[in-house]
Amino acid sequence: MIGTVTLNLALDVTYRVDDLVVGGSHRVTGIRQRAGGKGVNVARVASTLGHQVLALGFVGGQTGEIVAEELFDAGLTALLTPIRGETRRTVTIVNGADGDATVFNEAGPEISADEWRAFHDRMPWGRLGVLACSGSLPPGLPADAYAEIAVRARHHDVLSVIDVGGDALMAAATAGAIVRSNAAELRAAVGELSVEEGARRLVTAGATAAVITDGARGMVAASNKGVWRAAPVEQVAGNPTGAGDACTAVVAAAVAESPEPDWAEVLKSAVAVSAAAVLTPVAGDIDVEAYRRWQPQVAVQSF
Amino acid sequence: MIGTVTLNLALDVTYRVDDLVVGGSHRVTGIRQRAGGKGVNVARVASTLGHQVLALGFVGGQTGEIVAEELFDAGLTALLTPIRGETRRTVTIVNGADGDATVFNEAGPEISADEWRAFHDRMPWGRLGVLACSGSLPPGLPADAYAEIAVRARHHDVLSVIDVGGDALMAAATAGAIVRSNAAELRAAVGELSVEEGARRLVTAGATAAVITDGARGMVAASNKGVWRAAPVEQVAGNPTGAGDACTAVVAAAVAESPEPDWAEVLKSAVAVSAAAVLTPVAGDIDVEAYRRWQPQVAVQSF
Repeated sequence: MIGTVTLNLALDVTYRVDDLVVGGSHRVTGIRQRAGGKGVNVARVASTLGHQVLALGFVGGQTGEIVAEELFDAGLTALLTPIRGETRRTVTIVNGADGDATVFNEAGPEISADEWRAFHDRMPWGRLGVLACSGSLPPGLPADAYAEIAVRARHHDVLSVIDVGGDALMAAATAGAIVRSNAAELRAAVGELSVEEGARRLVTAGATAAVITDGARGMVAASNKGVWRAAPVEQVAGNPTGAGDACTAVVAAAVAESPEPDWAEVLKSAVAVSAAAVLTPVAGDIDVEAYRRWQPQVAVQSF
Repeated sequence: MIGTVTLNLALDVTYRVDDLVVGGSHRVTGIRQRAGGKGVNVARVASTLGHQVLALGFVGGQTGEIVAEELFDAGLTALLTPIRGETRRTVTIVNGADGDATVFNEAGPEISADEWRAFHDRMPWGRLGVLACSGSLPPGLPADAYAEIAVRARHHDVLSVIDVGGDALMAAATAGAIVRSNAAELRAAVGELSVEEGARRLVTAGATAAVITDGARGMVAASNKGVWRAAPVEQVAGNPTGAGDACTAVVAAAVAESPEPDWAEVLKSAVAVSAAAVLTPVAGDIDVEAYRRWQPQVAVQSF
């Protein structure tokens, strides 16, 4: 089973308006709301691809209840740690005129040390094949929260896939995780190296593997067996939000099936699923048919 | 007791952001939420001025629970009719750079015929001195909902103050209500007359009285005893949202104390309280000290 960790779960609310004007008053013509946070996107994609998923995170207050209900309605099994604070919302305004999205992200509730401990205590390590962690940290958690999870996972012989940037990226690598990031975050962590060199550097630092998205240039994977680059299938227009999370989902699924997957094969799936995510308007959704069609077509080069 | 009717109650959520950019992604740096809708502003101002208030409206779902809690926390007694739908939210984005507000209004839940009947059935007519109605109608209610309330109020010997525009303004006048509106809405209802003539026309149509805000030119009142115009105290800079609701609150309070108040005196209070509302950043709040200082200074002219 794939455990997906979303430390800062959200209720993502989308408002449609006819013509967004700063300083104006707008009638909302459409409302959609669902559970969100990058880890939830990972869970949705993994579940869509037929994998058993356990969504992990914190919920509090009435917004937390709505999030828990929505996960249930989406068919996602969840193990949620209750908190005193109120689960955050994000509000996205979609402009009817051009479809542009303007996003407002609440910071999220303060997590206490006791609540963080309760989260660890209820982690069902024995049932997890892999743990995928992604998204922002809520206030109150230590900056190295993901590295802490990776260390605990390793202690329980569970592999972790951690999608993170900044200082936390190198910390997760050092903790032995499979790290997921993008080229810009990679450079912020390792300096001005090529993506291939940077990914290799993360493995040298201790990462079991590194999978780095490189925008329109495709993706790079590194492990102690080598370095691979996959080219994109074709240029896809659409909504890139959630494409990286779809990549994390197939990486986690591959690791759940085999702790030492064929990274060239994983990259093919990762490139195809990311493009299939761009095709759909909502993060967490993928065009499964496009994914299956593209997957065998992805070209991978070994270094 | 003053009953305040808010048929489309809302949870008003205010987000503060550093620099609002259409198409951008924003961290919310501050969140405030409270019960809203024009009738709630009326209730808050009347309560602030020492009047006993009963807030009436519909609530549903988890947002409805938050609204009910917030009214309780604000010290406002409420008699709320439960509905199947979810109470709406409004989201206001306040730009930290210039304080400009961008507003998004959800339409509100559909009210069924049964729920509308339940609202009437629980109206505590015997305890009400006056009923003040204001704000938009939720989907599902008849367009003449306020006139229907005015007719029922009259049947129970309760005066009603109805703040409304468009066709509903003339309907409320015909039903014998004390009508509240602004100069633009008045003209839309009676044509290109002076505000004084238009107010008189509403009384001729059946209104017990008419109190019309005329922007920076002050206010006009009409009854079968005459027509009066009050000049503004001084030019006040601030937030005009809620100024009209403050006016409605003092009109309702005056009528609760005497069914035939001295309208020249009422206008003095109405002008002063509206200016005192502009001074405060949040609709429903007033600067009580400024109100008390300005009230005796307002100049009223009789026609």
